[in-house]
Amino acid sequence: MTLKNDRFLKALAREPVDVTPVWMMRQAGRYLPEYRATRQLAGDFLSLCQSPELACEVTLQPLRRYAFDAAILFSDILTIPDALGQGLYFSEGEGPKFRKLIRSAADVRQLPDINVASELEYVTDAVRLIRRELNGAVPLIGFSGSPWTLATYMIEGGGSKDFRIAKQFMYDNPEAMHQLLDKLAAAVIDYLNAQILAGAQAVQIFDTWGGILTTRSYQDFSLAYMQKIVAGLIKVNEGRAVPCILFTKNGGQWLEAIAATGCDAVGLDWTTEISLARARIGSKVALQGNMDPTMLYASPAAIRTEVATILQSFGAGNGHVFNLGHGITPEVDPAHVAAFVEAVHELSSTYHS
Amino acid sequence: MTLKNDRFLKALAREPVDVTPVWMMRQAGRYLPEYRATRQLAGDFLSLCQSPELACEVTLQPLRRYAFDAAILFSDILTIPDALGQGLYFSEGEGPKFRKLIRSAADVRQLPDINVASELEYVTDAVRLIRRELNGAVPLIGFSGSPWTLATYMIEGGGSKDFRIAKQFMYDNPEAMHQLLDKLAAAVIDYLNAQILAGAQAVQIFDTWGGILTTRSYQDFSLAYMQKIVAGLIKVNEGRAVPCILFTKNGGQWLEAIAATGCDAVGLDWTTEISLARARIGSKVALQGNMDPTMLYASPAAIRTEVATILQSFGAGNGHVFNLGHGITPEVDPAHVAAFVEAVHELSSTYHS
Repeated sequence: MTLKNDRFLKALAREPVDVTPVWMMRQAGRYLPEYRATRQLAGDFLSLCQSPELACEVTLQPLRRYAFDAAILFSDILTIPDALGQGLYFSEGEGPKFRKLIRSAADVRQLPDINVASELEYVTDAVRLIRRELNGAVPLIGFSGSPWTLATYMIEGGGSKDFRIAKQFMYDNPEAMHQLLDKLAAAVIDYLNAQILAGAQAVQIFDTWGGILTTRSYQDFSLAYMQKIVAGLIKVNEGRAVPCILFTKNGGQWLEAIAATGCDAVGLDWTTEISLARARIGSKVALQGNMDPTMLYASPAAIRTEVATILQSFGAGNGHVFNLGHGITPEVDPAHVAAFVEAVHELSSTYHS
Repeated sequence: MTLKNDRFLKALAREPVDVTPVWMMRQAGRYLPEYRATRQLAGDFLSLCQSPELACEVTLQPLRRYAFDAAILFSDILTIPDALGQGLYFSEGEGPKFRKLIRSAADVRQLPDINVASELEYVTDAVRLIRRELNGAVPLIGFSGSPWTLATYMIEGGGSKDFRIAKQFMYDNPEAMHQLLDKLAAAVIDYLNAQILAGAQAVQIFDTWGGILTTRSYQDFSLAYMQKIVAGLIKVNEGRAVPCILFTKNGGQWLEAIAATGCDAVGLDWTTEISLARARIGSKVALQGNMDPTMLYASPAAIRTEVATILQSFGAGNGHVFNLGHGITPEVDPAHVAAFVEAVHELSSTYHS
């Protein structure tokens, strides 16, 4: 099937485009009233993820409103630990929780030896359905959490302010932590390859919590496993390269190391000046980002000015996918998202010949 | 009065020392049972800060247990907004709150034009009392929050996950934000100079929330005002230089700019590799840091290994004050702090000739 809009994949390959492609992390989400309605229909968040039809519906919702250049699979980053039997659930207002926790080397050893991807057929079913419904309009991005990020939730049992339990586990039981991360890296490879074979045309690894580590721990406990994943991914499918984007929130100090993993693109949070990121790693990888997500609470005029500043900072040439520096938050006015997307397309043409 | 232990001041001046000096952010705090007892005596947190006798007592408590090379004034970073009439209070388990909020340019204009330092005599009284009680044992550090950090609390009304209200104010009303920051910078200068004249032998500016900004906003809305403060501080008192330490949490991408403010030392959080920080700015300033505070939850043996790794990373020579990369947290075992301090002194002598 021909892709009608391949700007996103071209930018990731650092090939010329007419305007800078744009999508938003968490673009299928609570800021959209139609998302909230579908979620209410599903009952709870996990049921929404587990229904291919409803997951497909919310994936497509933002594309009906905005001229995004990519769709991203709607799912949760914690499907893998759930498939490993940890018992994911969502308590109202408190985010994700697990019924079983990893707190010892024995807990790690007792994790089942299963093919996670085959347990997660609801995800690959959703990917196939979304591809059919997209009908080539824009490419579909698959994704997974990074092994370190998944491990923090499995050990802490949920989110955390300082991740002290996960870090204590790492500091006091580094071997057990490596075993856990090894297992998770293998599962992520299987999972992302299953998404690719089902139709995902690019993949992103969300390393939401790598940035809370020291430089050495980041290298050993987060980046090393992402590198392993990059090496294990299917590189070409449907006759086209399947690019991989690595995104470590608060990873601005480590861009060179991230780019050296062999990934195709590096996601930047909003704290990094994109001109400097380009000077550091722009000859090796494409860059994705990086407007401050809270900028979407400012006026449409201020949003447009900020988009112009970021486009100018990246400058002329190839290899930029516009995005936020982190996911959009629920209270944003959908009209401000329209201003954002329009600004990227309108103001970027001057940077492409 | 002669200072019996001046390692801390010598290291800040990048002069030779026998062993690397060490102190801990929040060393007077809830991890100590004697602190919790004094706080209970005081009634609430603000009363503890406002009593020079009790503030002196908790400042000295950690020095009775550990061989710290500096004391730090016990106070709260939000005394300045409180003195400006914003009505600081602490709600149990929720942290600091303000009765009045800054939400408009008019709110900024209505802030009173007062000498904040003279409203905060309880702080300078505490400084004088602590100096008397220290009797030259170790130097005393004074401190303030950075203008940007104070502004976030004044606008948000307390802590925040994403500081969206403060950032929206900055993005939509940059002029009013600059007026607020100007006012706060002037107040911080008066406040720190009053602390210095009362006996503080070094000062630290805590920019706890500068690291949530974009590079450009950090420069314009946080660092520019810290630079103004550095320029306005008393440089010599009691015949000795009064060094100034700037600490921006998550500021690792901006070390060169921080070092260029004219400060004497840069505080590093734990995400920055100290050898790289030294290569970047070690010829201009001293470095303070930077063990992960959650490392104190690991075993004493693991703590000792991490201290050794950081000492080795900094390497031989002058200009290192050992510290955590952020404040110690309440649940740490006091015995682990002893292991930390002992390790710094015991393992560092080999790096000093």
